[in-house]
Amino acid sequence: MKFSFFTLFPQLIQPYFQQSIMGNAHKKGIIEVNCINIRDFATNKYKKVDDTLTGGGAGMLLNPFVLHCALQQALDTRIIFLSPCGAKFTQQDAKRLSQYQHISFVCGRYEGFDERIIELYATEIFSIGDFILSGGELAALCMADSIARNLASVLGSEESLQGESFESNLLEAPNFTKSKDFDKNFPNFLPTSEYLKGNHAIIVDLKFKMSKMKTQYFRPDLFQSLARIQ
Amino acid sequence: MKFSFFTLFPQLIQPYFQQSIMGNAHKKGIIEVNCINIRDFATNKYKKVDDTLTGGGAGMLLNPFVLHCALQQALDTRIIFLSPCGAKFTQQDAKRLSQYQHISFVCGRYEGFDERIIELYATEIFSIGDFILSGGELAALCMADSIARNLASVLGSEESLQGESFESNLLEAPNFTKSKDFDKNFPNFLPTSEYLKGNHAIIVDLKFKMSKMKTQYFRPDLFQSLARIQ
Repeated sequence: MKFSFFTLFPQLIQPYFQQSIMGNAHKKGIIEVNCINIRDFATNKYKKVDDTLTGGGAGMLLNPFVLHCALQQALDTRIIFLSPCGAKFTQQDAKRLSQYQHISFVCGRYEGFDERIIELYATEIFSIGDFILSGGELAALCMADSIARNLASVLGSEESLQGESFESNLLEAPNFTKSKDFDKNFPNFLPTSEYLKGNHAIIVDLKFKMSKMKTQYFRPDLFQSLARIQ
Repeated sequence: MKFSFFTLFPQLIQPYFQQSIMGNAHKKGIIEVNCINIRDFATNKYKKVDDTLTGGGAGMLLNPFVLHCALQQALDTRIIFLSPCGAKFTQQDAKRLSQYQHISFVCGRYEGFDERIIELYATEIFSIGDFILSGGELAALCMADSIARNLASVLGSEESLQGESFESNLLEAPNFTKSKDFDKNFPNFLPTSEYLKGNHAIIVDLKFKMSKMKTQYFRPDLFQSLARIQ
């Protein structure tokens, strides 16, 4: 699978694919990463990439003509714009998008995009949450990470998709380790006793119940959508 | 303001504060960034930082004793754990948290945290969205970026908080640039005519109406919460 990032700051993107799980997926060739510097497509002398707002107002927008030139590289791909006005990105989108061969992320800076460039080029528009970021780069990295995790062989043996939060619209049940150092230092703070007894069927059942309780308590919205599915 | 990141991958954090708006805030000394490698607090010979699950199950958790040792560095700070089970981070949290002097982000890896380390150390627990990431690093960076933008003098003159999406629980109105290159290439695709006429009062009113319509259409949940406030 290939990810292209259209950005003014390729140096914010590349390091993420040099470490840990995404680093390994990149090294193994499971994912390919391509950064396109939008500034390379500026036609003016000073390589200016921003422009003022029609009708006035503070701030600048990315110049849509520069972006139009840059996006000629992405015509055969699924073009995703990162914008606060986009659809909320979820685990279901991550799964769905992992089926595509090539996704291009367009990362905004300044006050965002000229509406016309979105209309011309966006296949989908996503937001990762109701907060403002300095640019689309972190949002694009979140999406790429979350999408890539669904590809076969990206996750090593120490990682697992099963039982993770949101995979079944439930938050994950509380987990505990066998850390002896911790138990020695906090002897009165042991894991739930059923976990320690080790009866697998009882633990699975208990974890499912705790997952449901945790979701109902912390995320009533998720719990309701679960009830609708069942 | 100081951000401390407790992570196994400091190299995923540092580059973000060397570029663009966060790079400038860092250079100017408005924000200070400190990465603490959790692995430095592993006491065993192989610097192992993960541990198996009590009661069985796939995957590993961060060893809570190693984390307990690392977090001695954070006792006087606001300790934020990144976890899918946390509260949904929003622009309101970003504003509120920008009032603190020192925030520590604890970035999970593997299957997450031993529940006991969260109970012992977390001041707050946050999730940035309903999708799974390989680790807490990107979520912590999103939070730090969004928080830091609220500090005086972080945003340059080309940037502005006012009128941005979520600042008033409304999505931003469509924006257009004055790009002549674009208009020349797409002569039939001009901005909304009222924008071009340039009557400031009419434009402000129109933008507010479009903001409301856009929010009502794309994010009925936000629109409802707005109606409750008014």
